[in-house]
Amino acid sequence: MTPRGFSYGAISADVKGTGGTRPDLGLVFCDREAVASGLFTTNLVKAAPVLIAMEQSRRGTLRAVLANAGNANACTGESGVADARSLMAEAGICLGVDPDQVSPLSTGVIGVNLPVDRMRSKIAGLVSNLGPDPEVFARSIMTTDTYPKLVTRKAGEAVVLGMAKGAGMIAPDMATTLAVVLTDAVISKQDLDNIIKRSIEKTFNAVTIDGDTSTNDVLMALSTCYVTVNTDELETAIFEVIRDLALLIVRDGEGATKFVSITVQGAFSAADAKKAAMAVGNSLLVKTALFGADPNWGRIVAAVGYSGARMDPGKVGVTVSGYRVVFSGTEAEGFREETLHGLLREKDIDIVIDLGQGAGEFTVYTTDLSYDYVRINAEYRT
Amino acid sequence: MTPRGFSYGAISADVKGTGGTRPDLGLVFCDREAVASGLFTTNLVKAAPVLIAMEQSRRGTLRAVLANAGNANACTGESGVADARSLMAEAGICLGVDPDQVSPLSTGVIGVNLPVDRMRSKIAGLVSNLGPDPEVFARSIMTTDTYPKLVTRKAGEAVVLGMAKGAGMIAPDMATTLAVVLTDAVISKQDLDNIIKRSIEKTFNAVTIDGDTSTNDVLMALSTCYVTVNTDELETAIFEVIRDLALLIVRDGEGATKFVSITVQGAFSAADAKKAAMAVGNSLLVKTALFGADPNWGRIVAAVGYSGARMDPGKVGVTVSGYRVVFSGTEAEGFREETLHGLLREKDIDIVIDLGQGAGEFTVYTTDLSYDYVRINAEYRT
Repeated sequence: MTPRGFSYGAISADVKGTGGTRPDLGLVFCDREAVASGLFTTNLVKAAPVLIAMEQSRRGTLRAVLANAGNANACTGESGVADARSLMAEAGICLGVDPDQVSPLSTGVIGVNLPVDRMRSKIAGLVSNLGPDPEVFARSIMTTDTYPKLVTRKAGEAVVLGMAKGAGMIAPDMATTLAVVLTDAVISKQDLDNIIKRSIEKTFNAVTIDGDTSTNDVLMALSTCYVTVNTDELETAIFEVIRDLALLIVRDGEGATKFVSITVQGAFSAADAKKAAMAVGNSLLVKTALFGADPNWGRIVAAVGYSGARMDPGKVGVTVSGYRVVFSGTEAEGFREETLHGLLREKDIDIVIDLGQGAGEFTVYTTDLSYDYVRINAEYRT
Repeated sequence: MTPRGFSYGAISADVKGTGGTRPDLGLVFCDREAVASGLFTTNLVKAAPVLIAMEQSRRGTLRAVLANAGNANACTGESGVADARSLMAEAGICLGVDPDQVSPLSTGVIGVNLPVDRMRSKIAGLVSNLGPDPEVFARSIMTTDTYPKLVTRKAGEAVVLGMAKGAGMIAPDMATTLAVVLTDAVISKQDLDNIIKRSIEKTFNAVTIDGDTSTNDVLMALSTCYVTVNTDELETAIFEVIRDLALLIVRDGEGATKFVSITVQGAFSAADAKKAAMAVGNSLLVKTALFGADPNWGRIVAAVGYSGARMDPGKVGVTVSGYRVVFSGTEAEGFREETLHGLLREKDIDIVIDLGQGAGEFTVYTTDLSYDYVRINAEYRT
């Protein structure tokens, strides 16, 4: 089940220059002009392809997405932009489309120029590889992901397909990622802009692995507009695809051994709830306690206390996976450390914090912090 | 070299209830009423002893400090306050002073009531232990510290002595700590208040290990006022004592293998410089790269980019331990990855980031993030 009008390809271009042979250059091609909307990192340091894709999103139509893993093409100055444009030009020639309609996406190490000659020489082969299987593209954008991330939903007779990469530098605004959302539903540029903006607030903007916001985040939505559907139904499908991609990214967070949802309710406002939930989700002390199943609930309450959310320490309640841990700011009656320890040993953990102040609520998705996170990010590969 | 008028004691009270025998209850006694000024955690969740010590600091005089490790007496509600007051009362009786003049400090696990009967029964012995060696007190407040932290300075004929504990939950506002600063210099309450406030801005408020702000931070300054000194000289001595304590805390950060100073200069304002330096110092990707000596300088620039500091990506410069890494936002000419890798293998690392925008400057002190940090904080000790 894939949306009409798209084909997919991938090829190995050894972007890292380490002699690797896994496909690291991917292509999505639209058989006609697609309506396009993008969302971009809020980091002031934006990679060259992000700067180009932002312009393209403003224009609002695309014929292709050309993505690579292994090199972010960030902090590469004007030569980075020239490199990206040179790849777009080659793809434009091979595909027979306007190069400005080929959107570049890059992920990988910062500050290194793309091996642009080697990459360009692979584009003709990449184009001749185009076929119906989106997974080849989803695999080509993987970095430390342990599996490709694809989600599909139907909206009437239309299909929405999302693909994304994780897995580190995951923070809101946006969850660090490259993502493409493809559909064949008839939709205007304006509606598509609005739907993806609304969809990321409680999805990509609600997940955090390490609090780092990357230079390369892009979500690009494309529609070939073949199938007429109800717009509300389409919005639901797009929202669910984006949400499920966000959750897949958390589950595959670098070194993650647990999937943790943190809901703050009863806050003065939704903004207070988000502040508190993000502080808990980003606290190294909470994340290491989750890794070790350490029933040290004080770390959760302490993180709420410094989050900046308005709160009264005497009113806080906490439940973990349904078990009441804190009531009125102190240990709940009958609380047993061993019970909490047992719940924290599970792979899925659900933390609910009630501030007892109002109706504000927000849920954040995160992981624990393990030895493997440190290993993955400390490794120096010469 | 210790300030006149103070004596020190410590005793084992097995505060954790694990049958431990190391001294975990400490006492500083002043032979006459001391001028007292405190600074306290900004966390909204404040431990019972913090709430009491805040009142005492407002009153401005003290006769003793009674400190314990192993239990923070935080999130313990009204019984926590009653427990602290019961220990103050016993100390008041044994020392022959007003219990309200005995300041309680606690550090350790949150949410567990103090073993108040066992602790109270040790106080008479603790008082009879009082002697001239401050190190016994400095040792009694250690938690995961690997060594006691004492610093002294002379100001004319007066002495300033500082003692502190680290070593996790280290974030600005304030570096998580219990600290006492003792002097025999003649000083007014107002002057002492001002001096410690000015002293922490670039010291305790400029260090970060894990970004978590604790429920229990207290710095308490006491003077027995025996020796007349120049106030400026005294301020310099107090500043240096507090700064050196802060640096000792960073060097002994949980699992730290490196001591890292991060200076941001050329920012629009000092506040922008602090935001940028803190973002770099708290970035897990930067901290794990430092641990692994990974010459991935893009992580530094990316952290500046999401810090909220005003910046122009094309103007950023970075040097690491004197070696130019980034110039005008891209890799500096002649940069060699192997050279940076070698510099990052050193124990002391000095990162200077120039934003090329103005005169704002701030330095943050931090550590790398190691496997041992995860181990120390993930361990569940039953």
